[in-house]
Amino acid sequence: MTLPWEIQAQKARDILSSSIPQQWLIPADKLPSPDEKNVEDFPRRSGLFSEHELAITEMSATKLVRDMGSGNLTAEEVVTAFLKRAVVGHQLLNFATEFLAEKAISRAKELDRHFKETGKLVGPLHGVPISVKEHIGIKDLTCNGGYVAWVNDTATEDALLLQCLEKAGAIFHVRTNQPQSLMVSLPSHRHLCCSNNLTGTTLNPYNLTLSPGGSSGGEGASTGFKCAPLGIGTDIGGSIRCPAAFCGSYGFRPTALRNPMTGIKAPEPGQEAIRGVVGPLASQSVADLELFQQAVLDQQPWEIETSIPPVPWRRVQPTKDMTVGIMWDDGIVHPHPPVTRALRHAKSKLEAAGIKVVDWEPYKHGHGWDIISKMYYPDAALLQRSLITASGEPTLPLTSWAFTYSSPNPLTIAETWTLNAQRDVYRDEYQALMRSRGVDFILCPAYVGVAAVLGESHYWNYTAIWNILDQPAVVFPSGLFVEKDELVEEEKEYVPRTNGVDEREWMKWKVAGAERYEGAPVGLQLVGKHFKDEETLAAAGLVSELLSSA
Amino acid sequence: MTLPWEIQAQKARDILSSSIPQQWLIPADKLPSPDEKNVEDFPRRSGLFSEHELAITEMSATKLVRDMGSGNLTAEEVVTAFLKRAVVGHQLLNFATEFLAEKAISRAKELDRHFKETGKLVGPLHGVPISVKEHIGIKDLTCNGGYVAWVNDTATEDALLLQCLEKAGAIFHVRTNQPQSLMVSLPSHRHLCCSNNLTGTTLNPYNLTLSPGGSSGGEGASTGFKCAPLGIGTDIGGSIRCPAAFCGSYGFRPTALRNPMTGIKAPEPGQEAIRGVVGPLASQSVADLELFQQAVLDQQPWEIETSIPPVPWRRVQPTKDMTVGIMWDDGIVHPHPPVTRALRHAKSKLEAAGIKVVDWEPYKHGHGWDIISKMYYPDAALLQRSLITASGEPTLPLTSWAFTYSSPNPLTIAETWTLNAQRDVYRDEYQALMRSRGVDFILCPAYVGVAAVLGESHYWNYTAIWNILDQPAVVFPSGLFVEKDELVEEEKEYVPRTNGVDEREWMKWKVAGAERYEGAPVGLQLVGKHFKDEETLAAAGLVSELLSSA
Repeated sequence: MTLPWEIQAQKARDILSSSIPQQWLIPADKLPSPDEKNVEDFPRRSGLFSEHELAITEMSATKLVRDMGSGNLTAEEVVTAFLKRAVVGHQLLNFATEFLAEKAISRAKELDRHFKETGKLVGPLHGVPISVKEHIGIKDLTCNGGYVAWVNDTATEDALLLQCLEKAGAIFHVRTNQPQSLMVSLPSHRHLCCSNNLTGTTLNPYNLTLSPGGSSGGEGASTGFKCAPLGIGTDIGGSIRCPAAFCGSYGFRPTALRNPMTGIKAPEPGQEAIRGVVGPLASQSVADLELFQQAVLDQQPWEIETSIPPVPWRRVQPTKDMTVGIMWDDGIVHPHPPVTRALRHAKSKLEAAGIKVVDWEPYKHGHGWDIISKMYYPDAALLQRSLITASGEPTLPLTSWAFTYSSPNPLTIAETWTLNAQRDVYRDEYQALMRSRGVDFILCPAYVGVAAVLGESHYWNYTAIWNILDQPAVVFPSGLFVEKDELVEEEKEYVPRTNGVDEREWMKWKVAGAERYEGAPVGLQLVGKHFKDEETLAAAGLVSELLSSA
Repeated sequence: MTLPWEIQAQKARDILSSSIPQQWLIPADKLPSPDEKNVEDFPRRSGLFSEHELAITEMSATKLVRDMGSGNLTAEEVVTAFLKRAVVGHQLLNFATEFLAEKAISRAKELDRHFKETGKLVGPLHGVPISVKEHIGIKDLTCNGGYVAWVNDTATEDALLLQCLEKAGAIFHVRTNQPQSLMVSLPSHRHLCCSNNLTGTTLNPYNLTLSPGGSSGGEGASTGFKCAPLGIGTDIGGSIRCPAAFCGSYGFRPTALRNPMTGIKAPEPGQEAIRGVVGPLASQSVADLELFQQAVLDQQPWEIETSIPPVPWRRVQPTKDMTVGIMWDDGIVHPHPPVTRALRHAKSKLEAAGIKVVDWEPYKHGHGWDIISKMYYPDAALLQRSLITASGEPTLPLTSWAFTYSSPNPLTIAETWTLNAQRDVYRDEYQALMRSRGVDFILCPAYVGVAAVLGESHYWNYTAIWNILDQPAVVFPSGLFVEKDELVEEEKEYVPRTNGVDEREWMKWKVAGAERYEGAPVGLQLVGKHFKDEETLAAAGLVSELLSSA
């Protein structure tokens, strides 16, 4: 007899709660008041952290490694400071599924010993604490992928990506939350929210009524609250980039088949029509995303995971000699005013820096959505539904929402082939268009608006389009936030398109948007050409710096 | 009303016959006698060719380009000599589907003019005549892919590969035959024989009762008879390598996603579980295969066909500092004695040259076959069957044979995912095994025996295994031929395995094998690691030279 799903799910909560280092929990009298929505700056104003701890947790990974390399910091104090901040963050945001405090500190001590004895760092990520989305397997730990049915599953090996990062010196200190049905293919995604029947719902540090994004929502919260300088998410429709945009962090969706996927759990291994990817989020800078990528690819993971083509990570210097096309609207859903404002801000900053900026007309984004949305559940979501049925857990609202995209019947084999062929043609056309228009990078929204209200993440084609096109995309903060009473003058009279979707999304903003989204950061997305990951990160680093310059 | 298939098919024969340059047809009194099986040396003994024409057509592409670069040869005399030899070859072997004489000669004149004016070659393949398998599209020409139903289909553009080759200076002078149902995915294959209801059956130049191999059988005959120094075939189970091995030529199956596939016609665009590839055959040397690859990849086809990862073609020098593992038997079907003899010959030559040789134990080749054979027709061959039904053409025996591998019902989507996942695991395991055993290359049979008797190509896992593993593989002549009364002493008493397949294949040899296969060359296959195409060609070049050395 199967136990009721509530009893099964309890195991995940037990693992979580018994792993929390109690000494760092916020004392009752220091808790933020219930009407405080924004807790992003809680660490600084709570008085719970020393200046040294604040300084450490607000450093980039690049700087942390430099300071450990010069002997100014030890790995132990670094990982301890981030663990402390992660515990506090978890208490406020419910982003963790398991803390790895003991193992992390012991590994930090080992690294410190190594440095003391040899005077050398073990690698480019020496002592850098990294938070890890739960479905990325860690040896001997459970790996439930957001499903109650998998609550007892245990990974037999570290995911290949984690092996690479560990060799580079990284320390994994906390595992993070994901929504039910993160599903689809090796990687994840699906909800752009972050709620499941195991450890519940993760919140946004900038506004507790908002979603941290999903499916790597735990990572959004982790990096947004600076519980880790780097985190690892997965993305098949925006699952790295939405959390990064929603939480004021940085996120990178690499071209598929660059980072190794071995050992990442998902309901559909072998689904490869639309490939999910694994990639980094960062709390401080685009440079840290690159540090991560370089550390991984320098280890030639293609020698082990043969699906990966041997394309070494190239060192690329940013250059202002580039053309950026700004996509103001995808032709389907009009972005909310703060997003448009951020794009205008970016345009003027780029032009002031002497960078050539043109408008980018979207090319058949509706067609792209038609293809990818059919690819998400070609089997009519049979696998996902059966996983939910297996435990008896309820289907959460956004899971049902995602399932509405599945066809009532599985596609035929021939239909899946047709979709693949359409996908390839569309990719080639888009690439040719960028070339013929002379556009190197596309600057565009990361989402129709800022962080969605919890349960309202419905439209994700501002990110998914780059999944079907398989183009590398970087999300970074514009430096702007939602402003009180904001509504761009000429947008007041915006009349939504009659496609059903545009009006739904516009009304979310129009009715008291500035109030609903109070405090939310505005992220932007820079997209490069297929396999030009290095150039895209270099350009995004430059753009991001220009945006934050005075 | 649809016309009877015989009437529809007539169009293909009309195109062919009206394209044949009549002036080079063999006069009736010069035809070989009906009892001559071996026509490979017909050009030399017929007296139809001048010494100069013989010299040209027996040169490698590398040497031809060199001689055109020094002004010793013109492109016009080169292409004319090969056209002449191709017409004679076609008359004997029925390998062509269409001659492109006028266009080829006019292009040659253009190249000669360019050279005269600038003193420079247009590219690394300047003036090199290349024969092209029919389903590789050429603008404004029909492209039937071996199906009567497609007899009127016309390509709207040159295949991307042809565009690259043409830019490099190549000239396409003849299009070549393929079997019915070459099918499967973009690339082809399926019959390892070469017979269709359009232009009939292609024969083997070394023995007219034998198959030239398939599905690129026209290319086997073309390069085997030296109608072209280079040819283009496609391969999803051995379709480049078997024709090369059967006809005494050289053939290369690159790693998938290196050469561009855009514009190659097949029944299943979008089928990508098992990817077909396009690659070169050569009449003279492994070096010519490399020349071809270099010319194509130096043009960065990934800028246009985004499925291709940007992996430039590297210049690699051959080295004797390598370990070659010899696979004597795949554990399923025992090779025929001439193949074993060729492997022994190779072993002694390699050892004499100081190369380290070890035995290679095959690893789960039956498992690999289980996966790939299910991938060939996951839709129960519905698409192929409907293409045959569409015109009413009869299903040829080897097509029926291939269809027996399809399941009675289409696989479910989930079943296809499982196969993909099994494939990836198998690939990673095989790669890891090569690494752990310290083996750089595997030397093995290209087929269970030498060229099959027409209609008897039944077992192709000596080649297909490298398709499922996606490892680059080169076929080259061992320098040996079937010998009269050949049966290796210790093999006389060979008792076939009871798997049903081994006995069937062994009996083909045991009963008068030496007689049935009289005159057939023995090819061998060298296999490298995934994406080590450059190293594999370099090593195969070295091995091939050692085998032909005294």
